[in-house]
Amino acid sequence: MQTRIEVGILGATGMVGQHFIKFLQGHPWFDLKWLGASDRSAGKKYRDAMTWHLGVVPDSVADLVVEDCKPGNAPRLLFSAMDASVATEIERAFAAAGHVVVSNSRNHRMEADVPLLVPEINPDHLKLVPRQQRVRGWKGQIVTNPNCSTVVLTMGLGPLKQFGITKVIATTMQAVSGAGYPGVASMDILGNVVPFIGGEEEKMEQETQKILGEFRGDRVEPLAARVSAHCNRVPVVDGHTVTVSVELASKPAEADLRAAFDSFSGVPQQRELPSAPARPVIYMEEANRPQPRKDAERERGMAAFVGRLRACPVLDYKFVALGHNTVRGAAGAAVLNAELILSEGMLD
Amino acid sequence: MQTRIEVGILGATGMVGQHFIKFLQGHPWFDLKWLGASDRSAGKKYRDAMTWHLGVVPDSVADLVVEDCKPGNAPRLLFSAMDASVATEIERAFAAAGHVVVSNSRNHRMEADVPLLVPEINPDHLKLVPRQQRVRGWKGQIVTNPNCSTVVLTMGLGPLKQFGITKVIATTMQAVSGAGYPGVASMDILGNVVPFIGGEEEKMEQETQKILGEFRGDRVEPLAARVSAHCNRVPVVDGHTVTVSVELASKPAEADLRAAFDSFSGVPQQRELPSAPARPVIYMEEANRPQPRKDAERERGMAAFVGRLRACPVLDYKFVALGHNTVRGAAGAAVLNAELILSEGMLD
Amino acid sequence: MQTRIEVGILGATGMVGQHFIKFLQGHPWFDLKWLGASDRSAGKKYRDAMTWHLGVVPDSVADLVVEDCKPGNAPRLLFSAMDASVATEIERAFAAAGHVVVSNSRNHRMEADVPLLVPEINPDHLKLVPRQQRVRGWKGQIVTNPNCSTVVLTMGLGPLKQFGITKVIATTMQAVSGAGYPGVASMDILGNVVPFIGGEEEKMEQETQKILGEFRGDRVEPLAARVSAHCNRVPVVDGHTVTVSVELASKPAEADLRAAFDSFSGVPQQRELPSAPARPVIYMEEANRPQPRKDAERERGMAAFVGRLRACPVLDYKFVALGHNTVRGAAGAAVLNAELILSEGMLD
Amino acid sequence: MQTRIEVGILGATGMVGQHFIKFLQGHPWFDLKWLGASDRSAGKKYRDAMTWHLGVVPDSVADLVVEDCKPGNAPRLLFSAMDASVATEIERAFAAAGHVVVSNSRNHRMEADVPLLVPEINPDHLKLVPRQQRVRGWKGQIVTNPNCSTVVLTMGLGPLKQFGITKVIATTMQAVSGAGYPGVASMDILGNVVPFIGGEEEKMEQETQKILGEFRGDRVEPLAARVSAHCNRVPVVDGHTVTVSVELASKPAEADLRAAFDSFSGVPQQRELPSAPARPVIYMEEANRPQPRKDAERERGMAAFVGRLRACPVLDYKFVALGHNTVRGAAGAAVLNAELILSEGMLD
Repeated sequence: MQTRIEVGILGATGMVGQHFIKFLQGHPWFDLKWLGASDRSAGKKYRDAMTWHLGVVPDSVADLVVEDCKPGNAPRLLFSAMDASVATEIERAFAAAGHVVVSNSRNHRMEADVPLLVPEINPDHLKLVPRQQRVRGWKGQIVTNPNCSTVVLTMGLGPLKQFGITKVIATTMQAVSGAGYPGVASMDILGNVVPFIGGEEEKMEQETQKILGEFRGDRVEPLAARVSAHCNRVPVVDGHTVTVSVELASKPAEADLRAAFDSFSGVPQQRELPSAPARPVIYMEEANRPQPRKDAERERGMAAFVGRLRACPVLDYKFVALGHNTVRGAAGAAVLNAELILSEGMLD
Repeated sequence: MQTRIEVGILGATGMVGQHFIKFLQGHPWFDLKWLGASDRSAGKKYRDAMTWHLGVVPDSVADLVVEDCKPGNAPRLLFSAMDASVATEIERAFAAAGHVVVSNSRNHRMEADVPLLVPEINPDHLKLVPRQQRVRGWKGQIVTNPNCSTVVLTMGLGPLKQFGITKVIATTMQAVSGAGYPGVASMDILGNVVPFIGGEEEKMEQETQKILGEFRGDRVEPLAARVSAHCNRVPVVDGHTVTVSVELASKPAEADLRAAFDSFSGVPQQRELPSAPARPVIYMEEANRPQPRKDAERERGMAAFVGRLRACPVLDYKFVALGHNTVRGAAGAAVLNAELILSEGMLD
Repeated sequence: MQTRIEVGILGATGMVGQHFIKFLQGHPWFDLKWLGASDRSAGKKYRDAMTWHLGVVPDSVADLVVEDCKPGNAPRLLFSAMDASVATEIERAFAAAGHVVVSNSRNHRMEADVPLLVPEINPDHLKLVPRQQRVRGWKGQIVTNPNCSTVVLTMGLGPLKQFGITKVIATTMQAVSGAGYPGVASMDILGNVVPFIGGEEEKMEQETQKILGEFRGDRVEPLAARVSAHCNRVPVVDGHTVTVSVELASKPAEADLRAAFDSFSGVPQQRELPSAPARPVIYMEEANRPQPRKDAERERGMAAFVGRLRACPVLDYKFVALGHNTVRGAAGAAVLNAELILSEGMLD
Repeated sequence: MQTRIEVGILGATGMVGQHFIKFLQGHPWFDLKWLGASDRSAGKKYRDAMTWHLGVVPDSVADLVVEDCKPGNAPRLLFSAMDASVATEIERAFAAAGHVVVSNSRNHRMEADVPLLVPEINPDHLKLVPRQQRVRGWKGQIVTNPNCSTVVLTMGLGPLKQFGITKVIATTMQAVSGAGYPGVASMDILGNVVPFIGGEEEKMEQETQKILGEFRGDRVEPLAARVSAHCNRVPVVDGHTVTVSVELASKPAEADLRAAFDSFSGVPQQRELPSAPARPVIYMEEANRPQPRKDAERERGMAAFVGRLRACPVLDYKFVALGHNTVRGAAGAAVLNAELILSEGMLD
């Protein structure tokens, strides 16, 4: 990779936008040069346009002038951190104008011609893009990453896809950072569990089927597994923990699953994409791991951690999975998607 | 009830013992007059024999002299809060000597002739006692209550037993008070989840089958349901939260389950036992309830709270259950068992 | 007290209003019959006008229709839980119209003719009311209680006033419930300390001087002590903890201070006002007490707890004080003020 | 620096020992080759001798065989993480045998001939070493760093020493990691404040006077300031926060203090010692900073963060200070001391 590519962020002032900025610091391929936000912020220096929540605002963006979220002088490659209330139209407008919109927003994830990617699992779903461009008449494109809890679940399930996943029951214990800022009120979560996150269970159930589905012809055939999610908020800052029970058609031995976790690798690892973890799934031997505060930030937050694999008396096996919700579950996921797109030559 | 009955506590200095003392304050039937503990504590005033962890040590016990845990001058009715490392022999010695040992310890729960009770669900399992006394040659008896997380799960399942429970997958989010004192290190749980509690999953799976089983002849036939538990510790002080997916043989409608929760009642309610909650299971309509910090202490900690009943894409239904682990899940459970025993005339 | 008095709440839908409603449940003198709130809520049933944050909304108010906050059919005695942004004009309007406004809002606290009361310390400051009525031409009156952290500090200092308080340095560790709802974002306070609470230090410094001041003629002469506050937010739900260093003119012995704490009592105790704690200040002997989670709710949240009295190398003595911020520091404080007013015959 | 120096750790299996190991990973000067611990651990591989609490045990030490804590084959330069119960004799034995013992233990800190160093503040106190060696007949030496809360306080006060510090009142809010493992029970600190840490206040008061004192002839004249500490434990993982009120003899303007914080630098910065932060004290402009969860880990945990400088109504000024208790307050402090010693040529 000789030259760095200029990139921008749609929705740069919100919490997800800040995570993008933080994750892109020092990126070897992408040079963050453009920040888009709402009318209210446009025209201001970035440092004056928002309250920074992630330590200290990086010098490289502090004095950038925030732009209106309209196609024009924006770079071709854009990361979208837009709020769901506005993402639909804006992302479409940019894609129509020729931009590659790599979005963390939920709005287009489940559309039939939009790739919903976990690059280690379904990189071939990028093949939806030509259809998307053809049908919609776009020169650009929209590519999405999953919901933060879906990422953790699918990375735990990815290595097991070969065994024929037929049923999944998952319970999440999700960090507060997943709710943005101000997000969850401290009065609601200190010393407490909130057994509900609006829309989250539906997203986990549907997105998991799409990600683990097969690209056939010009469409993705969702995995025919039944997936059931129980989503909970717990007083953890970063890192979603998920307990998983799974039924597998081929009835593999426990050792087969362990081997599958340990050997799991994908296109991002083969191509040594800059944000790819050396091993996307790390199995921990300790009886009481993984744990969010101790493990989520390892491997720059880009790996999933799995542990406690054992027989399930109801389905076939059960285990626990963990991932960093704002990195692998959001900004880092989108950046890895963009690296995949670039490595495919789709930006040439 | 004319006269109050003298009772004692085996293992009075530990955390569970303290919960018994606290729960028995002002009890209308039971008069706490005897405190037993290890050699190390025997002979000391109670206030000098332990460090109290539950606010302020009650005056009524502060100056009681702690006794050795040997049968002799102890009252006939004893609550056991003994550590599992010593409970087996001591509880047996007291039962052999004619005492009614109402135990919170795990040691005898799964023995074939020992009742494992949730009084609203299986009060008839008390019929195991005559066999226990006959086979073991005891004048006394041992009666047990379940593990704290099992109580919450079985109270959530109890109303559904009528529909034929065949499969259960449960994930717990358990409070630190369940681990005693000092219990969980703050370095392990602040802002964290620990996805493992030693022995807990096995207890939940086995005890649930026994409690929901049928008394036939002189034995309990365990429920033939398959039960799978994922147990986690979360940074909550009191109250275990459990997500539950359940398969039901009779395929009832969701409204049937709601009616079952709402109308659930049992012997403790019929007999108006002093520690019985007016309604043992309280269904909450709010989308994000029950929650441990907001709900566990309601109804003096003796009710279970259930919410979020909905279809499960894998099994039939799913919901969330909550209960107070040191009250309904420990001391309060044993006291309610004793009240049931007394109401049966088994202490006459 | 033969008959109960009807009372109302200004600002009934907010968090402080909810604390008033909770605290007034079962009150022997006051019958809550009127709830006032903003235009937006007026006309709705209370249960539909707000989101309840304190467990389960009491039946006694759930179906009351919320009224506009304008004098008219409101009871004579009103508790004000109004937000500071609107309290000034509304409280004055009700006082002008003849209502006794017992306010928890900060707006009028420091006005020269408005009593700022801690009933055990300065009940005689109620003598400001005639001047207030004369000067402002009001038939009614406004009486206030201090900021929640000021209450804790002044109850710790009240017993020491006799020794001539000349300097005070206090550092608070304040609970999140003091910030209302949604209040402090969980992202800001989980596993964290925020060393700033807007306006809080100024309130603690000024209000303390007024409360500990002397009523002379028709005015309150503030205590000539210098007071310095450091205010911090910590991840605690209820209970403000304050470390205090104090200089005392008469140079009493440590035993004199202990005796002063232990014997402290006031008009609310003498008159056995319903919300008065038996002992307003409870000194705890344990080396590591008081603690908010273990002590704040004792004595129905109406006492202050003090401990760790020892010499201070810089000023004369130091100690730690604790009180329940939403009870003794807010709703309970106002209700005790109203009980004092009633016991003075000022409502006849 | 051409060659790396071999170093060892006394007390390598405890929590502080683990922090030393973590901090020394990749150190440019020091090559960790020797791990000493108690008889119980000696002879085992390090990975088998302890439970690692800081993520994943580094490969570089996992297979080192733990040695007995007796002089012999240990490297000349040793870091001591020994428990106070055994440190006195063992550290002396090593110093007598010619080792340079750079200790984090409290045992020798207050001895008249032992340097107690904060290298930016009192590097000249190393001149106590010749006297220590002469009087005790040692070829080696013992050099110490302060208690973790003292470090934070003295780094906040160091820049102000020039103004003549005469009185200090400090209140700490200390992280649980300062108490080691298992340390503080979760039942004691979840949602709570514990207003007492055994021995901590005395250490802060005495150590501060020694560190800020002057080396005169062959002794350190303690600063004649009066220092008063209130020490509290709060539910924070890492980072001690301290509120400080200070009296200054020269009555400087607030701008003078700001300039002193901003320009503060010392020998570690001049010599560019590897563990020295670029700026030892970082003043934060934001009204609500520094905060432990957001700031303590910045600058590799080696800087102190100061904020909220303002007039104090009782003493002259007040501010808040923050530092990482297990890095700058323990392992990092000792390593910086060793770097200072090496840079002085005292290891030649």
